[in-house]
Amino acid sequence: MGDFLVETTDLLSRTPDVLRSLLKGIPEAWTGTADIEGGWRPKDVVGHLITAELDDWLVRTERILEHGTGKPFDTFDRFAHVGRDDDQTLDQLVDRFAELRESNLGKVDDLVGDGDLDRRGMHPTLGEVTLRELLATWAVHDLDHISQIFAGMAGSYDRNVGAWKAYLGILLRRDDPAAVAG
Amino acid sequence: MGDFLVETTDLLSRTPDVLRSLLKGIPEAWTGTADIEGGWRPKDVVGHLITAELDDWLVRTERILEHGTGKPFDTFDRFAHVGRDDDQTLDQLVDRFAELRESNLGKVDDLVGDGDLDRRGMHPTLGEVTLRELLATWAVHDLDHISQIFAGMAGSYDRNVGAWKAYLGILLRRDDPAAVAG
Repeated sequence: MGDFLVETTDLLSRTPDVLRSLLKGIPEAWTGTADIEGGWRPKDVVGHLITAELDDWLVRTERILEHGTGKPFDTFDRFAHVGRDDDQTLDQLVDRFAELRESNLGKVDDLVGDGDLDRRGMHPTLGEVTLRELLATWAVHDLDHISQIFAGMAGSYDRNVGAWKAYLGILLRRDDPAAVAG
Repeated sequence: MGDFLVETTDLLSRTPDVLRSLLKGIPEAWTGTADIEGGWRPKDVVGHLITAELDDWLVRTERILEHGTGKPFDTFDRFAHVGRDDDQTLDQLVDRFAELRESNLGKVDDLVGDGDLDRRGMHPTLGEVTLRELLATWAVHDLDHISQIFAGMAGSYDRNVGAWKAYLGILLRRDDPAAVAG
């Protein structure tokens, strides 16, 4: 396996452990706040990551390998977790995500070789994309949404930090995205 | 121990494991980029977290308990890691941080009770602050800087995601803090 596949799957394989380390058994005081007004709580984010494991990355990988650009990807429901996960705890969702990620990485290992990375698919709005771009996006999407979890967790402590808020960009940006910490 | 101390030290105790899960042994392709232009690479961030364990949180906790507002906190050098850590690997820094954090949480457990949380100290620029605010800030500071690590890691893959960048806020915000993902 070449560098890109090794490096990308390395990052993807870390996310379940990062989420477990951060969230399993964490006191509820940290998990009740969304990243921004109208945004997502940690539980919503993990639910969205589950949806993406179910409906996005692997399904689109298979679509590229089977159909190339001939059959566009299905659209992806960014809000499929809403309602679906109501009877699940955050801990259960973290475990469910980990199972799905492990399974999907096994399938990638079976399906994708270095020679496939430049194969092309058709995104319904972005147009032609490569399998390499899909896999890179999968990894950066993890980083993006884990950051969203951190922002929500920080928001849960917004009222506790007092005057120090002026130095905490993660809190200032929840109020004003362009804010710069002092 | 009351809820605030339990909840705050719970978060603080997670950070070493989060950093280990995310960074130990990670391919260098993920760690060479700063969060923003002129910002910090993951190694710089971990170095800064080490400085804060050495010079900030516990030292200021002790200052509050010993001197109250009578002796202001010493100023804190946000750039003490620059140069200091040049001969250390990222893995070594992650381990060093974990040792310091464990030791400091042991000292907090020994030194701080619920009845101390409203005790006051004097910040050199922010003025009077409470021990509760100091401990809360310690935790949110972790979240803030781990997010910075995520932004740098995402930046390392900026060129790999192609057209999907339009949907990845963590990348768009490196170029424009107020950017909104499509």
